[in-house]
Amino acid sequence: MESRVSSFAAAAAGQWKIVSVRTISGAGLAPASHLWIGAESGLPAAPAWVLRGSGSNLRYTTEQEVAGLTAVQEGLGRPAASAGALIPIRKSDAWWSLAQDRRRAIFEEQSRHIRIGLAYLPPIARKLFHARDLGEPFDFLTWFEFAPADAPAFDRLLAELRQTEEWRYVDREVEIRVERA
Amino acid sequence: MESRVSSFAAAAAGQWKIVSVRTISGAGLAPASHLWIGAESGLPAAPAWVLRGSGSNLRYTTEQEVAGLTAVQEGLGRPAASAGALIPIRKSDAWWSLAQDRRRAIFEEQSRHIRIGLAYLPPIARKLFHARDLGEPFDFLTWFEFAPADAPAFDRLLAELRQTEEWRYVDREVEIRVERA
Repeated sequence: MESRVSSFAAAAAGQWKIVSVRTISGAGLAPASHLWIGAESGLPAAPAWVLRGSGSNLRYTTEQEVAGLTAVQEGLGRPAASAGALIPIRKSDAWWSLAQDRRRAIFEEQSRHIRIGLAYLPPIARKLFHARDLGEPFDFLTWFEFAPADAPAFDRLLAELRQTEEWRYVDREVEIRVERA
Repeated sequence: MESRVSSFAAAAAGQWKIVSVRTISGAGLAPASHLWIGAESGLPAAPAWVLRGSGSNLRYTTEQEVAGLTAVQEGLGRPAASAGALIPIRKSDAWWSLAQDRRRAIFEEQSRHIRIGLAYLPPIARKLFHARDLGEPFDFLTWFEFAPADAPAFDRLLAELRQTEEWRYVDREVEIRVERA
């Protein structure tokens, strides 16, 4: 059975060079020179930390929204996208105790999470990994790839999301900026 | 960090005696004398199989539905509830590629999954464990507890659910009936 779990390890070698590790809220993460991404079986020796997440199904996105995203988004691995970021976040117990319709309403109708992300497509490509069910210290890991020239747009995307109602439920967030090694 | 992952192991000893292992669809599971439930660190020796699942947040239930369920349901561990069942199921790729609103519509508006379960509360207590993100062979493990006298009602509950539109997306299902050891 092939696992859909990916590991993100802070180590001495990896596909990405770590440019900065910035704590946005809650406990931080130790710095390291490189970020390694792959299956658990290939983990580098003595990592400073390892975060795991599962490439899973979408939890809030409607059929119409999926169609809108699919029409414009581009995949990971674009040669020009040599800048990246890994942003692990954890949401509070108050968030997780909300029912599905309440979480969806805060996520999109109030916070416009999908609409904000859509406005930055295709330049900012991203993939979401779910970590909460794995008993990990974070609930989600979001991986972003973009061209260095789009870094200011990426900063605006993060600023917009962090001002939303949804983000009031984020109690731990670390921003790890990287460039292709 | 405490994990919310529980392990269900088929072994020579455990809190529950296995009465039957019945394959409903897809590949079956090997028989064993007992079902052991607990944290991975305490697993019994040489289990025939181990299934893991995470006690996670609800994925489809609205606030109103949660209130309806909470008002009538009873917890696990009732002394009279000496009969139980573990039902692991897997849903097809076709299910998982549906958007959230389409899955919700099939789950409740078409299949009345929540309403059917509610009709059997409080006698049939249950807890859902999510397994898909863990890379497990099943997507969900549902654990049920009830008094032996309510076994016919439990059979009707299963029969109702298996006739729904939602169940057309179930491609593997095994029914493990147990009694308290």
